[in-house]
Amino acid sequence: MKDDILTKIPDVLHEEPAIEINEEEFDKTIRSRRSVRVYEKEKVPEKVIEKAIDHALLAPNSSNLQPWRFVWVKSEPQKKQLIKACLNQAAARTASDLIVVLARTENWRKTREQMLNVLKENNAPKGALSYYETIVPLAYNQGFLGVIGLIKRLVIFLRGFTKVTPRAPKSHADMRVWAHKSAALACENIMLSLRAQGYDSCPMEGFDEVRVLKCLGPNLQEKGQEVCMVISAGKRAKNGVYGPQIRMPREQFVSIL
Amino acid sequence: MKDDILTKIPDVLHEEPAIEINEEEFDKTIRSRRSVRVYEKEKVPEKVIEKAIDHALLAPNSSNLQPWRFVWVKSEPQKKQLIKACLNQAAARTASDLIVVLARTENWRKTREQMLNVLKENNAPKGALSYYETIVPLAYNQGFLGVIGLIKRLVIFLRGFTKVTPRAPKSHADMRVWAHKSAALACENIMLSLRAQGYDSCPMEGFDEVRVLKCLGPNLQEKGQEVCMVISAGKRAKNGVYGPQIRMPREQFVSIL
Repeated sequence: MKDDILTKIPDVLHEEPAIEINEEEFDKTIRSRRSVRVYEKEKVPEKVIEKAIDHALLAPNSSNLQPWRFVWVKSEPQKKQLIKACLNQAAARTASDLIVVLARTENWRKTREQMLNVLKENNAPKGALSYYETIVPLAYNQGFLGVIGLIKRLVIFLRGFTKVTPRAPKSHADMRVWAHKSAALACENIMLSLRAQGYDSCPMEGFDEVRVLKCLGPNLQEKGQEVCMVISAGKRAKNGVYGPQIRMPREQFVSIL
Repeated sequence: MKDDILTKIPDVLHEEPAIEINEEEFDKTIRSRRSVRVYEKEKVPEKVIEKAIDHALLAPNSSNLQPWRFVWVKSEPQKKQLIKACLNQAAARTASDLIVVLARTENWRKTREQMLNVLKENNAPKGALSYYETIVPLAYNQGFLGVIGLIKRLVIFLRGFTKVTPRAPKSHADMRVWAHKSAALACENIMLSLRAQGYDSCPMEGFDEVRVLKCLGPNLQEKGQEVCMVISAGKRAKNGVYGPQIRMPREQFVSIL
């Protein structure tokens, strides 16, 4: 069934032409984005943050299960706590705004059902329905104490000898990687969006995760939820970028086969 | 020492003003990016792929340790193998080009040394040097069989009761999350760059990882290297986007505190 929806080439079900874009503006966005660690006092307009989060929500993500959450911490006491949890670093302390991006390994159960409902309402092809009905739970359900994952590992291992076999996620550790990957795609949208809108950002991974999660209060706690990044936002200060961008030689990272 | 480089606000060491960008073009890039699963026969010009990879290399990444690799599979026999390893899905089969993006948990040892050399050459502040000298190995070295990670876990757990304590990565599983996060940031740059340049993409996670890695040949094998995504690129076909973009209600993912 999976083969069907993946391999079959459908007729035109929906038309969405590839619009033209001024690529130079995109190039400027990428090249002028730097991790900014000191910001001016100026506040970022609320609509700029709102838009950056809207852009995050449009990132591609695994099977469209949207395993992410974005928490914009505006309230002063909570922001103070969060800055502390971010080790009081300048990039957090001087920021106008802080967004906590969370990776979620469990909310796919709900979004899967929602996907099924939307697809049914829109008379989606059978293959798409059975993808969400059968393949998604098979792929993402690791079972109590990862028992299903263990069985999957054995089956995959054996099947893999003779057949092309999709292998991940097959453990809770894989589910973490899975959720963080989609969340990180969204993080990049936030940072580029801020830059395109005239502001700057710093992605932070140096934080006390237990305390960051505590800052979010009791209503946002969820099993299998982890902090992917805390992103600070603000107006770049003159001393905000610490040095020229350093990249090691391209050939260490790029290969052409 | 970590506190120093993170919390201290330095004088102007380097100036890089925040240039202005036409935000509308960025917004169009984000909104017109869709996962394209059927492409026209037209080849993507080589310079477009080159540029997308250049844009990937400029993504923010953890401690600038660049835990990634981009393999552009052009050779026909290897591309055929790779399409098979991607379950023969239409998004791979009809693509002009395929890029394998790898997450690397071990190359930080080399990039850390390179960072130290560059910083020394540029008379970087002491705090930056000691960050790479002391903090980076402490954070990323998990030791044989993760023994150092285990000790770290205990120390972090105890210290965390009374002090704000950075907690990750403290296991090999955390290192995987760590590397995939940075690699995913770069993936998003690739996809947006292709869109901005008039082409399209599809991020694929449905593949046989063992076979994808095998396609890369013996020279690119490396301990601790995993496939983050395979990204296909091409000219969007009329039937390339299967349906309107589906996003669940914003309030499931966005909170304001």
